[in-house]
Amino acid sequence: MKYNEHFSDMTENYLFAEVADRVARYSKAHPDKKVLKLGIGDVTLPLAPAVIEALHSGVDDMAKAETFKGYGPYEGYDFLREAVQGYYKKAGVELALDEIFISDGAKSDLGNILDIFSENNTVLIPDPVYPVYVDTNVMAGRKVIYASANEANGFLPMPDFHVDADIIYICSPNNPTGAAYTKEQLKVWVDYASKKGAVILYDAAYECFIKDDTLARSIFQIPGARTCAIEFCSLSKIAGFTGTRCGYTVIPMDLKKGGFIANRMWLRRQSTKYNGVPYIVQKGAAAVFTDEGMAQIKANLAVYQKNADTIAKCMDRLGIWYTGGKNSPYIWLKCPGGMGSWEFFDYLLGEVQVVGTPGAGFGKNGEGFFRLTAFGSPATTEEAVERMEKLLRK
Amino acid sequence: MKYNEHFSDMTENYLFAEVADRVARYSKAHPDKKVLKLGIGDVTLPLAPAVIEALHSGVDDMAKAETFKGYGPYEGYDFLREAVQGYYKKAGVELALDEIFISDGAKSDLGNILDIFSENNTVLIPDPVYPVYVDTNVMAGRKVIYASANEANGFLPMPDFHVDADIIYICSPNNPTGAAYTKEQLKVWVDYASKKGAVILYDAAYECFIKDDTLARSIFQIPGARTCAIEFCSLSKIAGFTGTRCGYTVIPMDLKKGGFIANRMWLRRQSTKYNGVPYIVQKGAAAVFTDEGMAQIKANLAVYQKNADTIAKCMDRLGIWYTGGKNSPYIWLKCPGGMGSWEFFDYLLGEVQVVGTPGAGFGKNGEGFFRLTAFGSPATTEEAVERMEKLLRK
Repeated sequence: MKYNEHFSDMTENYLFAEVADRVARYSKAHPDKKVLKLGIGDVTLPLAPAVIEALHSGVDDMAKAETFKGYGPYEGYDFLREAVQGYYKKAGVELALDEIFISDGAKSDLGNILDIFSENNTVLIPDPVYPVYVDTNVMAGRKVIYASANEANGFLPMPDFHVDADIIYICSPNNPTGAAYTKEQLKVWVDYASKKGAVILYDAAYECFIKDDTLARSIFQIPGARTCAIEFCSLSKIAGFTGTRCGYTVIPMDLKKGGFIANRMWLRRQSTKYNGVPYIVQKGAAAVFTDEGMAQIKANLAVYQKNADTIAKCMDRLGIWYTGGKNSPYIWLKCPGGMGSWEFFDYLLGEVQVVGTPGAGFGKNGEGFFRLTAFGSPATTEEAVERMEKLLRK
Repeated sequence: MKYNEHFSDMTENYLFAEVADRVARYSKAHPDKKVLKLGIGDVTLPLAPAVIEALHSGVDDMAKAETFKGYGPYEGYDFLREAVQGYYKKAGVELALDEIFISDGAKSDLGNILDIFSENNTVLIPDPVYPVYVDTNVMAGRKVIYASANEANGFLPMPDFHVDADIIYICSPNNPTGAAYTKEQLKVWVDYASKKGAVILYDAAYECFIKDDTLARSIFQIPGARTCAIEFCSLSKIAGFTGTRCGYTVIPMDLKKGGFIANRMWLRRQSTKYNGVPYIVQKGAAAVFTDEGMAQIKANLAVYQKNADTIAKCMDRLGIWYTGGKNSPYIWLKCPGGMGSWEFFDYLLGEVQVVGTPGAGFGKNGEGFFRLTAFGSPATTEEAVERMEKLLRK
């Protein structure tokens, strides 16, 4: 038996392990110092009451023979797919029910979708980026090329029509940079993909943070996207589902070539390698899209948005260049004084005990940049900002 | 962009759709006739009270900031892995905690595990078989060869040492045949795999139905298996989790070659393409392995076991050859009078309105055989058996 040799080509990403390690060493040496974490990429607020109630009701259904649920539909229950369909409709996007697939999260689907594409495709990925785009493709032996995201383009690279690509990853609002494409910018990407016969894998996991109407909440708000794009979204950030696991993937019926229909291939892939999301979780997820649930999760989101605003305003006052913060939970800042990412990490930790994430960990273009996140508590965020401002104003 | 051309090589399996279609047509033509279904492969009894209580408690944890859970460990929470470890210990199998991976079910892992193996491997699969073993490999373009399961070998094929294979699938107790290997028989498979440098993917989803101690409940009860086998198991059948989704996969640290360690590759695969099982579901799953939970699920299992016994005894009285029924929820019978699988299906449906599953749908060796299952209610099972006995005794 032969193992998959491509695993040797995957580089271990020690970013968060190294962060944890440096913090642990610092705390051990300075047990009296209170460390404030603004590096966290996970939600911290509990699930909304409407979701909790629906989850309990789902559990109760499983306790009685009359309402017990065995195997569910591979693509998710209609009650949840209809809720997602309604959510898109509010954003002006009309979807057929069978274009919506419920899953256990955007990360799983972003990796597993590659099953329907040949290994013989060139993959275009922005740098810096969420590491799993690269890893899932290297694992399968695909050729990866990069689109340079940098200060000059505001970390929003535009397509180079001289470069050929088959599979294109776009994450907007972006992790880690927080930068978000306007609808006009995305239209250029859709035109590029259409011209190249490429597919865009659009990661919309942070769409709920968008307040500015000129920015796209879904790639399907862009004319032409139905023939060249797949969208991945998740309840992780909008509703705090990182530990509850539910997301959805939209594959328009118009995405096809030769005899291949992407939507039907994905259904075949899922029915062969997957058995759907727990009924209980789907019940909870559906509550997110009710009026009551939406009002509650918006209150939670407002807490994170206020944290982001607190950090962004501090950067404004300090005159530090950054992306994100306004339509994203991430603030991606240029390390002051020309410091390197890890140098700035050590400086912030050592001087004011604030922890963020070195941008260099997200790709070579991340060097010299630093990510702060809005998922901490308001108190932690405010204290951290106060400390940073005092230090960096000097 | 190029689609994965191997999808064209996957044959659609219309088995259950065709069964549903024929039943619907019959019922439409004979609205007065009561159809009894013994074809169902899904559990029907509700979750055990201890599991329900743990699920509710898990939901409550998600409602409060102090106990809220975000991203969990990719490999599952220790509390559940320790419970699985204890379950194996009772079967005489010692496992290290990091050899146990929690997942959303055996089907997902059986498909996804292929990511760690090269496409350049020959796959040996029994015929007849659970269709996803074949489909997941055809999807990836692997060469599949078959081990013939038939009446002569009691649907328990033994290895042919003249045949080379790299990846071997074994499901015991088997779906669809209900046949289960003895420990001695499995030892021969382990020897074969060791000699060929192959890996056995062992599907133990039905181990909970084994009452006979000479049969293997885990491949790791067999000496030598730690260097050549991976085991997949699920709470679907033991605890009715088909709609709740939880399983586990065991990869011994001793399974390695060159620089490749299967266990670490799988962790890398899961951390790249997966985010773990919902915390709530893991809480419920852990309750299965408590004394209270185990007593309750055994009461549920006893219902299915009694159904299997009811069907098996009927076949005994009728002198019909079959496998399974004793240590399995499946009864795989030879169609009487030399009938073909679909011929017998129509005969049973038309004459006594009993529905089963034609064996031909599980592979070419299934022709002339028929699967009945024990997952119906005791009343349905008894009535169906009575009707079949009356018909077939004539």
